Amino acid sequence: MTVRLLHIDTSARPGRAGEHPHGSYTRRLSHAFITRWQATRPGDPVVYRDLAVTPPVPVQHAWIPSAFTPEAQRTPAQQATLAESDALVRELREADVLVLGVPMYNFGMPSTLKAWVDGIVRIGLTFGFDPGRPDPYMPLLVERPRRAVLLTSRGGHGFDAGGPLAAVNHADPALRDVLAFIGITDVHTIAVEHEEEGGEVLAASLAAALGAIDALVASTQAFAPAALSTREALAA
Amino acid sequence: MTVRLLHIDTSARPGRAGEHPHGSYTRRLSHAFITRWQATRPGDPVVYRDLAVTPPVPVQHAWIPSAFTPEAQRTPAQQATLAESDALVRELREADVLVLGVPMYNFGMPSTLKAWVDGIVRIGLTFGFDPGRPDPYMPLLVERPRRAVLLTSRGGHGFDAGGPLAAVNHADPALRDVLAFIGITDVHTIAVEHEEEGGEVLAASLAAALGAIDALVASTQAFAPAALSTREALAA
Repeated sequence: MTVRLLHIDTSARPGRAGEHPHGSYTRRLSHAFITRWQATRPGDPVVYRDLAVTPPVPVQHAWIPSAFTPEAQRTPAQQATLAESDALVRELREADVLVLGVPMYNFGMPSTLKAWVDGIVRIGLTFGFDPGRPDPYMPLLVERPRRAVLLTSRGGHGFDAGGPLAAVNHADPALRDVLAFIGITDVHTIAVEHEEEGGEVLAASLAAALGAIDALVASTQAFAPAALSTREALAA
Repeated sequence: MTVRLLHIDTSARPGRAGEHPHGSYTRRLSHAFITRWQATRPGDPVVYRDLAVTPPVPVQHAWIPSAFTPEAQRTPAQQATLAESDALVRELREADVLVLGVPMYNFGMPSTLKAWVDGIVRIGLTFGFDPGRPDPYMPLLVERPRRAVLLTSRGGHGFDAGGPLAAVNHADPALRDVLAFIGITDVHTIAVEHEEEGGEVLAASLAAALGAIDALVASTQAFAPAALSTREALAA
């Protein structure tokens, strides 16, 4: 019985902090999560996507009517327009655990990650719309449990919930809201802060984040069997 | 004495609501603002940029060290890497009034607009960093007043400050936070809501937005002379 992981990096910095000068903290954190996972569950498949290498195409004009056309009625051109979005949705649907690197750029997520978000929020696939209901939107990724892990890095500090800069954090909270909209409500955030300041405060923040990752891997591996049994029951 | 406007559209829909089937409400609002402006001040120059037609390149690896290298020391390759960002910053610096179409996509701004944001937030140009200060960040677009007008459209409703969905609005509030960071604190938002619902509630929201635009054009034209006199004094 395997757990399926989807590992997505988004930082514009290709290397990992600690291994490369000016490396990425989010790449370091997501790598730590996957490495730790595989240390105890080496057989679990990991699908990897690097949005800095293959940035999703932004939503374009033809995308909108294509997505709103029922699948069976789409023209070949419409199918082609949606092909990348289809692939992003498929990867997400198949995953039990989403591990996402989320560097904060100018209070928000990278534009490439927003393009990914705009690709995975798909009517009829990840959310439904019924104008006859009081709340017309319905999350569709609800047939079995999924967990999302947001591994974020912020130049400054105080962006966590309750912190002095929480109100201007539009990175991981925006992802949490989007994931809830499509049905993924079990979302965990681990952050490295103080990157601009550096020195001991950064080292302490990084050490705390790596420790939190170890604990989250353990709790997620404990959670996984429930997700799996639901998945396998559905497949039966 | 002229006021300089920067008009940026970002919707993936190329036409305007009311003129084209499935046209864009934000394009309609921004066009209304500019048209109304020019009715009383036809001589003011308007620079136009359409991010759906020319989406800015996302921040890439080479961008980061290029931006942190002092201008005089940049290699030709670094200058080329920054050329688009330089142009975006220049347009913004030269403007007195920024008129920005901001459709809400999945609770946030379009990815193309986030790429624009990541292009205009530039160390040494629009913000400064001094690690010796208690708050090391300094806005740099402060030498004269500027006003930003965010013209937004949301599928649903209740996303305004104080509304039931305000906490999940990461579109215009995220822009407001970024603009404040670089020194533009005079920011006005006008929204069309109920686009999904349509009918009378959408028509009422649109009418209210267009009325608010008329009033905001008038107040902005009254504000403009102060901005201009500061600009001309600085130029003297």
